[in-house]
Amino acid sequence: MSLVIIGTVAFDAIETPFGKTDKIVGGAATYASLAASYFYHKTKIVGVVGDDFHTEDIEDFKTRGIDVEGLQIKQGEKSFFWAGKYHNDMNSRDTLVTELNVLADFDPVIPESYQDCEYLLLGNLTPKIQQTTINRLRKRPKLVVLDTMNFWMDVALEDLLETLKLVDVLTINDAEARQLSGEFSLVKAAKKILGMGPKYLIIKKGEHGALLFSEDKIFSAPALPLAEVFDPTGAGDTFAGGFIGFLAKVGTINFNNMKNAVIYGSALASFCVEKFGTEKIKDLTDQEVEARIREFVSLSSFVIE
Amino acid sequence: MSLVIIGTVAFDAIETPFGKTDKIVGGAATYASLAASYFYHKTKIVGVVGDDFHTEDIEDFKTRGIDVEGLQIKQGEKSFFWAGKYHNDMNSRDTLVTELNVLADFDPVIPESYQDCEYLLLGNLTPKIQQTTINRLRKRPKLVVLDTMNFWMDVALEDLLETLKLVDVLTINDAEARQLSGEFSLVKAAKKILGMGPKYLIIKKGEHGALLFSEDKIFSAPALPLAEVFDPTGAGDTFAGGFIGFLAKVGTINFNNMKNAVIYGSALASFCVEKFGTEKIKDLTDQEVEARIREFVSLSSFVIE
Repeated sequence: MSLVIIGTVAFDAIETPFGKTDKIVGGAATYASLAASYFYHKTKIVGVVGDDFHTEDIEDFKTRGIDVEGLQIKQGEKSFFWAGKYHNDMNSRDTLVTELNVLADFDPVIPESYQDCEYLLLGNLTPKIQQTTINRLRKRPKLVVLDTMNFWMDVALEDLLETLKLVDVLTINDAEARQLSGEFSLVKAAKKILGMGPKYLIIKKGEHGALLFSEDKIFSAPALPLAEVFDPTGAGDTFAGGFIGFLAKVGTINFNNMKNAVIYGSALASFCVEKFGTEKIKDLTDQEVEARIREFVSLSSFVIE
Repeated sequence: MSLVIIGTVAFDAIETPFGKTDKIVGGAATYASLAASYFYHKTKIVGVVGDDFHTEDIEDFKTRGIDVEGLQIKQGEKSFFWAGKYHNDMNSRDTLVTELNVLADFDPVIPESYQDCEYLLLGNLTPKIQQTTINRLRKRPKLVVLDTMNFWMDVALEDLLETLKLVDVLTINDAEARQLSGEFSLVKAAKKILGMGPKYLIIKKGEHGALLFSEDKIFSAPALPLAEVFDPTGAGDTFAGGFIGFLAKVGTINFNNMKNAVIYGSALASFCVEKFGTEKIKDLTDQEVEARIREFVSLSSFVIE
């Protein structure tokens, strides 16, 4: 039994109103696997980097017990690189540089030791590669979660729709839910999207929390109000990783466990944005995580008799 | 003991993507008092209308047991009139007509029978009139709630800041909280605003719910995800009325009761937007209200062991 996470492993250069970084390790699979590792100890990455990725760059994965056998290192090539600058409101950003490099012809290799995958997170990537990953697992995992973004709706909608038929949970943000469904109301959007394949839909709303939809239920999770959002990069990936990591830990898929998984994912994401890149989420203590969960409980609980 | 609500009583003409109305009865005090009447039976209005306001126009107040002794009727003058058109996303609107009419020189008269006021809602109006209302009550009410909007921050900020020193609870939306405080983070905004006088701040976020802040606590209330928002007019006033009406009913002011009051206010507001104007909130049954409250509970509850 394991949790397999596929996604980008990359270098990012980030600028926010609070400062800027040199190239730091980022990527969807990086954030997601670090987050998942707090709840589940058999987390395995599939990805690709270039030879500019050094031993110390994968140290954080190893420290957190994350299996990197499925992380290909392409000699003579460079890692995916993204540079971006956030605006003052932190809700919008400009992409300054996107160098696909090794990602341009990424062909995911699933090591034999990953074939015990029960939980699969398809991090944000081309829908084709996400689909290939499912097909290369001999046994259909118990739970497949797919994260994607508006970019793939723009350039690879047909592939995305094909891939959506194969997954259990889709995580997107509110603007993306509206784009994918053509509906402004998130209730109507969810109904349409649940008709495309996924049994569950999570709509991420940033500072406004998240909505979890099944065919007949809705759960509204709060976001933790923060005095400062230092760097939003990776928050969605961290959410997805925390979400599936928690479900892998509890092992039973039902709406109540999904609700708690949304809270655990949100808690990890609330840490993520407090520092640059993975700085905060790479070495939390279990006590810090539990204390944050208690904050979510106290934030949103009320008793009506 | 009574709940006094001051605010506009007016005619509105509303256009939304779903249709348009002729002149219908609206105004902050109208929505708020109808909402409050579901929880508290000694609700009294202070306001002013012209002689175009006929007996049948105040029928809904009387049906709901709302005292209209403080509603002045100015002979030979016309009622406040507002016409607006909502855009497709329902989050923005254009004001087509604003005729102040009787509101231009409104001088609130507090009937002797209103001097038992324990709960006071200062609905959206000029801050000067809100302040005058407080001053004309011989005994300071147990709880004073003030609702306002960006317009008064633009044109009467000094008066608003003076009035804020006199109130217990302020309700505004997220954009207004940012404008009033000069802070983008709502946590920082709340801290500054709580330094201006109010002991509690409610930040209304429309489809994203509401945040309740005290000096050392935060509560995040969900909004009910709706398939269709038919007409948002009056939702904020309805929220404020339901909020203070519930507190008047329970009679004890503490953070837990405030949290429940936010849920009751949100529930009433969720009804308000389902039809044009006051159509939905003027004749709900107690069973409908309780069922809606249960929906809020089920929407946001989770159990982490």
